[in-house]
Amino acid sequence: MAKGIGAVGTQFLTFGSADEPFVTAGGEALPSVTLAYETYGTLNEKGDNAILLFHALSGSQHAAGTNTSVPGIEPRWTEEMHEGWWDSFIGAGRALDTSKYFIICANYLGGCYGSTGPASLNPATGKPYGADFPRITVHDIVRSQLPLLEALGVGKLHAVLGASLGGMLALDFAVHYPDLVANVIPIATGLRAHGLQQMHNLEQIIAITRDPDFKGGDYYGTSGPVHGLALARMISHKTFFWADVIEERARVDIVQPEMDIPWYRLSSSLESYMIYQGQKFVKRFDANSYLRIIDAWQQFDLHADAEERGVSSVFANCQDQRYLVFTIDSDCCFYPDYQTEICAELKRANVPHMRLTVHSEKGHDSFLLEPKLYTPHLAYALSH
Amino acid sequence: MAKGIGAVGTQFLTFGSADEPFVTAGGEALPSVTLAYETYGTLNEKGDNAILLFHALSGSQHAAGTNTSVPGIEPRWTEEMHEGWWDSFIGAGRALDTSKYFIICANYLGGCYGSTGPASLNPATGKPYGADFPRITVHDIVRSQLPLLEALGVGKLHAVLGASLGGMLALDFAVHYPDLVANVIPIATGLRAHGLQQMHNLEQIIAITRDPDFKGGDYYGTSGPVHGLALARMISHKTFFWADVIEERARVDIVQPEMDIPWYRLSSSLESYMIYQGQKFVKRFDANSYLRIIDAWQQFDLHADAEERGVSSVFANCQDQRYLVFTIDSDCCFYPDYQTEICAELKRANVPHMRLTVHSEKGHDSFLLEPKLYTPHLAYALSH
Repeated sequence: MAKGIGAVGTQFLTFGSADEPFVTAGGEALPSVTLAYETYGTLNEKGDNAILLFHALSGSQHAAGTNTSVPGIEPRWTEEMHEGWWDSFIGAGRALDTSKYFIICANYLGGCYGSTGPASLNPATGKPYGADFPRITVHDIVRSQLPLLEALGVGKLHAVLGASLGGMLALDFAVHYPDLVANVIPIATGLRAHGLQQMHNLEQIIAITRDPDFKGGDYYGTSGPVHGLALARMISHKTFFWADVIEERARVDIVQPEMDIPWYRLSSSLESYMIYQGQKFVKRFDANSYLRIIDAWQQFDLHADAEERGVSSVFANCQDQRYLVFTIDSDCCFYPDYQTEICAELKRANVPHMRLTVHSEKGHDSFLLEPKLYTPHLAYALSH
Repeated sequence: MAKGIGAVGTQFLTFGSADEPFVTAGGEALPSVTLAYETYGTLNEKGDNAILLFHALSGSQHAAGTNTSVPGIEPRWTEEMHEGWWDSFIGAGRALDTSKYFIICANYLGGCYGSTGPASLNPATGKPYGADFPRITVHDIVRSQLPLLEALGVGKLHAVLGASLGGMLALDFAVHYPDLVANVIPIATGLRAHGLQQMHNLEQIIAITRDPDFKGGDYYGTSGPVHGLALARMISHKTFFWADVIEERARVDIVQPEMDIPWYRLSSSLESYMIYQGQKFVKRFDANSYLRIIDAWQQFDLHADAEERGVSSVFANCQDQRYLVFTIDSDCCFYPDYQTEICAELKRANVPHMRLTVHSEKGHDSFLLEPKLYTPHLAYALSH
């Protein structure tokens, strides 16, 4: 009988020093990095049953169970954050079975749910980093989690796993540390930032940074770029669902939301719904974190990375790993073609892999909403 | 031998008075309406060889030949406007054959290329309408062109024709005035504003109206909301092309365009290209016109219109017309499904129609770029 996790709490690990800072790909130093993380299940004596789960762009370390409070980030820990974002996938008897595995999920470096990010205090100034927070890459985020694995006593991971941007992190981890993980499960993701994604991301970057309340990133203590961030969320939100589904979800009533759109009258419930999505998001996310994470996504390219590493192809050193690649057929954020590219590269490098396409009417967010489509193959791949 | 038009000029028709104003669907009165228009070819004695062509959202009355100047709108008549937007389709021996037909194209009511719009002087105040320009509908734009047909001596039109938003106008004309037109040719268009379009349009409305330089629409005499309008154009531009094509078009060099994006460094040539598209557009278009036209698009719904007209279906009175419907298979702005819906409605009302899908790698803008894909069927449909 499948069983949920119940109440959980976020833990924190801090590492680094002025002498041994965390240095980003761009060469900037963070003297101290804190990671907010949660774990579910128990690490076995051999330390080989751990699964590292990466959240998506706007997710958090809180993947399962109920967590009603995270110290220090209260205003952003809104009620919609309280239930773990993959709760229906994690627990005894669930896809990630906590009676068998030790599951770890950490908030991204650069994030806003307890890990060091732009809203954190800069020890050099005693004020939030804001615009001074360094540019980070996907690999910076991945690399920052190695000290956590070490602190938890994890040797080789049983699996890395992630969907959407989290899937990019899982792939980045797998190709950089082939000896540190046996199973790799990228869901609805890609090897690089594709053109349409880059355009959507750029639109969002402009929407936020052109908001006069952005103030070059130094908006802490003020309302911040709430209109720009809300517009950014609307731009991205439409890619998470199949358009027909959004129309269905849209409220029946046409309301003029509490938003100043001069000289325009809303025509449809869909418009109200999208504006509501934007307004809801700004309550729970920091604009600077959003920008830094999107920027990391923009730069992500495992082909270019393989060239820099001097290997013949992305998965050149991954022959001892096994991959399970998921595609969502109605995905408009990470199109099925993107996973075709992943599998072509896996094949090219003779890496054992399997690909499943789930048929969904929900689009990209199927990976959050339809556990039954993923659970059997996830459970099977992890236990064989 | 096909032959182009050569030098042409825009003409103007002004109608209406304080006693007989043009009244919008919303009940607002415009005491005087000017339409900027061009014609190509000659009206025959019977007055039955006229084709009314509707331009798309950001187009103009200048469909064919070369026009280097339109009085009164000089700063917006940039060099890219000088060649007619459908020049390769119009001329002796071309798809719209000027040796046979009299072709009329007028700038939209609400537009910014010479027809009465938000940038026009409000006779009541002697200042530009700005925010006081009335909300308009697609049918308002269509209706405003009837006095032009009358002034030109056109009885029944041989055809109405339009692509994209212009196709919506063509359909609106056809269903409201079934006795005034014989052939109807909607290209890459739809019966209504679909969900994804409404989301894209709303994003653009917010991008423009939230720009502090928009000033509620009363920005004339200042730089205006150039950043918001540029972002809006980027949002829409990506839907006009197949994403792969945009990547191809993007410049090879990564340049930091002259745009203040604080705290962000461009990652790709694609980003530079999109920013360039936005910057180019703001030189040639008025933000208020853009908003009014997008708003008309948002409201467009021929199903709802049929209900209001009290008829059983969209094409209930169109049995004496003939339709030629074009689909572009790679269209991400007006998806092929939208034309499937048009044809289903035509079939339901027993209206003679034919549908062609052109196979293109260019996406929506194929209708501007690939005359050979359309010319044979256009010429055939118009001459039979």
